[in-house]
Amino acid sequence: MNTYDLIMKKREGSVLTREEINYLVDGFTNGQIPDYQMAAFLMAVFFRGMNYEETATLTMAMADSGECLDLSGIEGIKVDKHSTGGVGDKTSLIVGPILASLGVPVAKMSGRGLGHTGGTIDKLEGIPGFRTSISKSDFIKQVNRIKLAIVGQTANLAPADKKIYALRDVTATVDNISLIAASIMSKKLAAGADAIVLDVKVGTGAFMKTLEDARELARTMVAIGTMAGRNTTAVISDMNEPLGNAVGNILEIEEAIECLKGNGEKRLMKVSKVLACHMLLAAQKAYSIDEADKMVEEVISSGRAFEKMKEFVAAQGGDTGYLENTERFNKATLLAVVTGKDLLQAKEPFKKQNQAYLFACNNQEIGMASMILGGGRQTKDSKLDLTVGICLKKHLGDLIKEQEEIAVLYGNDVHKLKEAKKRFINAYTLSEKEHFSNKMIYEIIAKKDL
Amino acid sequence: MNTYDLIMKKREGSVLTREEINYLVDGFTNGQIPDYQMAAFLMAVFFRGMNYEETATLTMAMADSGECLDLSGIEGIKVDKHSTGGVGDKTSLIVGPILASLGVPVAKMSGRGLGHTGGTIDKLEGIPGFRTSISKSDFIKQVNRIKLAIVGQTANLAPADKKIYALRDVTATVDNISLIAASIMSKKLAAGADAIVLDVKVGTGAFMKTLEDARELARTMVAIGTMAGRNTTAVISDMNEPLGNAVGNILEIEEAIECLKGNGEKRLMKVSKVLACHMLLAAQKAYSIDEADKMVEEVISSGRAFEKMKEFVAAQGGDTGYLENTERFNKATLLAVVTGKDLLQAKEPFKKQNQAYLFACNNQEIGMASMILGGGRQTKDSKLDLTVGICLKKHLGDLIKEQEEIAVLYGNDVHKLKEAKKRFINAYTLSEKEHFSNKMIYEIIAKKDL
Repeated sequence: MNTYDLIMKKREGSVLTREEINYLVDGFTNGQIPDYQMAAFLMAVFFRGMNYEETATLTMAMADSGECLDLSGIEGIKVDKHSTGGVGDKTSLIVGPILASLGVPVAKMSGRGLGHTGGTIDKLEGIPGFRTSISKSDFIKQVNRIKLAIVGQTANLAPADKKIYALRDVTATVDNISLIAASIMSKKLAAGADAIVLDVKVGTGAFMKTLEDARELARTMVAIGTMAGRNTTAVISDMNEPLGNAVGNILEIEEAIECLKGNGEKRLMKVSKVLACHMLLAAQKAYSIDEADKMVEEVISSGRAFEKMKEFVAAQGGDTGYLENTERFNKATLLAVVTGKDLLQAKEPFKKQNQAYLFACNNQEIGMASMILGGGRQTKDSKLDLTVGICLKKHLGDLIKEQEEIAVLYGNDVHKLKEAKKRFINAYTLSEKEHFSNKMIYEIIAKKDL
Repeated sequence: MNTYDLIMKKREGSVLTREEINYLVDGFTNGQIPDYQMAAFLMAVFFRGMNYEETATLTMAMADSGECLDLSGIEGIKVDKHSTGGVGDKTSLIVGPILASLGVPVAKMSGRGLGHTGGTIDKLEGIPGFRTSISKSDFIKQVNRIKLAIVGQTANLAPADKKIYALRDVTATVDNISLIAASIMSKKLAAGADAIVLDVKVGTGAFMKTLEDARELARTMVAIGTMAGRNTTAVISDMNEPLGNAVGNILEIEEAIECLKGNGEKRLMKVSKVLACHMLLAAQKAYSIDEADKMVEEVISSGRAFEKMKEFVAAQGGDTGYLENTERFNKATLLAVVTGKDLLQAKEPFKKQNQAYLFACNNQEIGMASMILGGGRQTKDSKLDLTVGICLKKHLGDLIKEQEEIAVLYGNDVHKLKEAKKRFINAYTLSEKEHFSNKMIYEIIAKKDL
């Protein structure tokens, strides 16, 4: 077997065997296959694609390239959740405590944000004292004791994915469904859960811009998970506007707390509950969505989910006083209010009107506005300002009037605040008439749907 | 401008600008653009192609990456000839003296053979004393004095092509018409001739296996040459069997001498004359093919072409005594005769017959048989045995009978001779009936045909 022949084989549109894919992944990871051959191979994959079997084999080879977490020390069916990333997505902080309070073990490795998207680990670091790095044995002990632990990703999960991703990132081979699915799923497989619920975001703030692409990514990941023997379900959810009201790390922690107290914004709650229900089904704690839904409602209304959040934060060294009284959280020093007038005046046909409907937004631009404020990373090495962000007062479909507040931007630098406000305003499109139907959940894809 | 965006642009099928292509070629040549980005770009070109403008720009950028020969010191219109490579192709050794004897300056840089194809420089080294490396000023002086010089390629012509070719060679991106055309033409442009006549080979012994591919390569190269301001013509000629009777370096020198003396095999003479005629037209020494044809006939029948060959060999230090008496050339020590019986017995339906027609051959395999004998290079560093090779006694379409000689193989190693004979025999296909029509010249493509 040699690399040249495998590049040629894929270039000509043939299906690679398990041995051939393993040869490529192992060879590239251990440095025997040079970057330039892998780059040519990846571009050939971009044009020719990979079928589900090839993609699953690639994924498993990447998962096996490093450490695979052994979660067998945790009792029960371990269910992991993964979001493909979006703006204002704090569902892990809501779903984790809900599941744990229902006795489902959640042993979660989370990532950091990049570009317009946020990451759970960054958000958790907004709670004073919270430790995102704990030893493997303490991690397992904590999950057994309180059913919930969320830690940063260790360096050694799927190193092949890390190396391949770095190459894709500079060779314009990122946006291929098979390669995206393999990258996500290799880390999930290595992270050791028995079942996986995927939240595939679609819309202007997501990596998948069309439902068709999101569906193909969802189907591919479910196929991979299934072939790897993990019970896998994908929820395709909307990312055409920020999820909930808050965008920014500490602001999102505060919003998650409100959700667990039963005061969540309705679209955010909808996604969180759907994800929680499918995780309960996967964990065999409920046997129908209706049953699961009632269980989720109960742990929120009874306060058990919020109590679990406090227990989890305390277990990882966080100061739960901040959760009891969110006023104590650090705040940015400057505010900029975006009013209906700001939006109306910036949009050509609405300049002289005093009301309009919020029709659409470029959600990625809202993520970028938060990034400009300091809430997101421009590059992997950017330092975050956890206090900044955006708080939405209006959502798509809402009627906005001149004097109403649309959003408040929080920042610590007057120039950045000005730039972010401009970018925020530019992100929106208005309409004269109300004709808004923005679904929150588009589809659920499971093994039976393949 | 950055490399990532240019890879993406080509990947999405857009046309690159002159500035963008120059950026890529310059950046890659000077080491600023890494191999892996160029590899991804080349694979994107493989799938998306390049139009004539892009290909011409790429070619000129590669030509400009190193030294461009200044032939302005040579009087007259300098016409270069290039063959895309084949088996038994010794036309340069025939055409060069013909043109020079008609007063057309031929200042030629030639290559060495690789794999199943031969190279002019290797062949010339079969003449004792012949120097393939002479100084630039002596090269120009020689052309002015006797109108002909043929030297090995200097290292510094189109270094970008050398670097890009090396990368294509290991990333399965060799077989793309634009990249092949740019590679050939960049060296031709840098070699400084005013006009270029291309011999595009098609058939089982050529890189282009179909007339369609050969035509596209020819058209692309003529387009490049034209855009670069060089009068360029392409002749598409047959390579479905070895050209002429001899395959192997010294054997081919001997055959070229016979041709110049008027005793050439007819298909070989046909190609040589067509090439010579188009070179005469390009050099403005003749104004019609008929006129050119008569001039060529005259210099052969009068012996002027052969005299020019001797003058040329002498000018570069070669011993012309060998040309006068070709018996003096070094000979291989062992012979293997392939008879009609050998062929008939090896082919299933003909086993018990005593005659058949030579229907087709895998010409590349005949080139490989010569390579096995030591006449060709397996890798760039292989050392040649100039004395070995194959001498054909029969051609496609000929009736062969049991006791007739089909070919004689010359070697210096009994095992290699046995292997080469087997390979030679396997290369042929026989037929019961005569239904052979193997054209020698398929098409002529010039600027007006684009």
